[in-house]
Amino acid sequence: MPKTLMILAHPKLEESIGNKFISKSISKQPNVTVRHLDKLYPDFKIDIKAEQEALLNADVIVFQYPLFWYSTPAILKEWIDQVMQYGFAFGKDSYGLADKKIIVSFTIGSPVKLYPKEVIEKITFPLKGLAEYCNVEYGGAIFCNDINGYSDEAKANALKNAADHSEKLLELINS
Amino acid sequence: MPKTLMILAHPKLEESIGNKFISKSISKQPNVTVRHLDKLYPDFKIDIKAEQEALLNADVIVFQYPLFWYSTPAILKEWIDQVMQYGFAFGKDSYGLADKKIIVSFTIGSPVKLYPKEVIEKITFPLKGLAEYCNVEYGGAIFCNDINGYSDEAKANALKNAADHSEKLLELINS
Repeated sequence: MPKTLMILAHPKLEESIGNKFISKSISKQPNVTVRHLDKLYPDFKIDIKAEQEALLNADVIVFQYPLFWYSTPAILKEWIDQVMQYGFAFGKDSYGLADKKIIVSFTIGSPVKLYPKEVIEKITFPLKGLAEYCNVEYGGAIFCNDINGYSDEAKANALKNAADHSEKLLELINS
Repeated sequence: MPKTLMILAHPKLEESIGNKFISKSISKQPNVTVRHLDKLYPDFKIDIKAEQEALLNADVIVFQYPLFWYSTPAILKEWIDQVMQYGFAFGKDSYGLADKKIIVSFTIGSPVKLYPKEVIEKITFPLKGLAEYCNVEYGGAIFCNDINGYSDEAKANALKNAADHSEKLLELINS
């Protein structure tokens, strides 16, 4: 298992199904650190140095979040804007993360049929672009749908999807 | 001039060229309100009721921001996630903004050649999707490039681009 850093964004993790399951499941593996941004930074004041150090210590970086309005939660966007700075993550001779891999891992509340391949490509474009701009290997995006708990049946289905997702994520991390 | 609400996101507006010029220029028109999110909410704690009231009072909503990592600044994303709620902006019989128009207006620091049409379509997908999901008319996206002040010549060029942009934005608002 490579040294893995999961950057987790979820404003209500305890109420979540997918992100709670996936992050707990991955955190039990060896060499995994999970940083839950909402818990670390309730006021959105990111500790840039601490985050950059955590990145430098990792081989694989996983962005884990629920899809909100076709993109990341704001706390993850603030993390990107603050941490992925010129001179650290990109710039003349300064691609500090160039030996690492980024994996994008997210959950979607809605049914799978609303998210065909071309929509997923648009949704993942900013994080794929981030990886490319910073000369980081893009390890791909995985997602699971129907993550809601509106009924017992829906909840059981969501947990099954989250378990499948966790297995796929482990494979991606190790590939 | 329809009642226009500009939702402005820029963490360092005084140092900006394009967003400062465009927001000042539009704010001089009649019936225009500009809400600068970074100034209103330095701690990211959005006043949801105040924002929803401002939306209800407007005919045209303009999202104005600099492109950061292929998407909106985090403060604008937090605004969207908090304000565009179920039961207000969408939901069973609850499309509260259905009689309005959304315009997406942004600046890009990099040269225009890096942003062909298919890239712009990916970049604007989340805000276009937001408009469609909320049954709001999508009034289109406009952007200007090369907005940086690395030299006197670059700054003069950026100001010219921003002035052209402001004119186009006024046309879109009035169309």
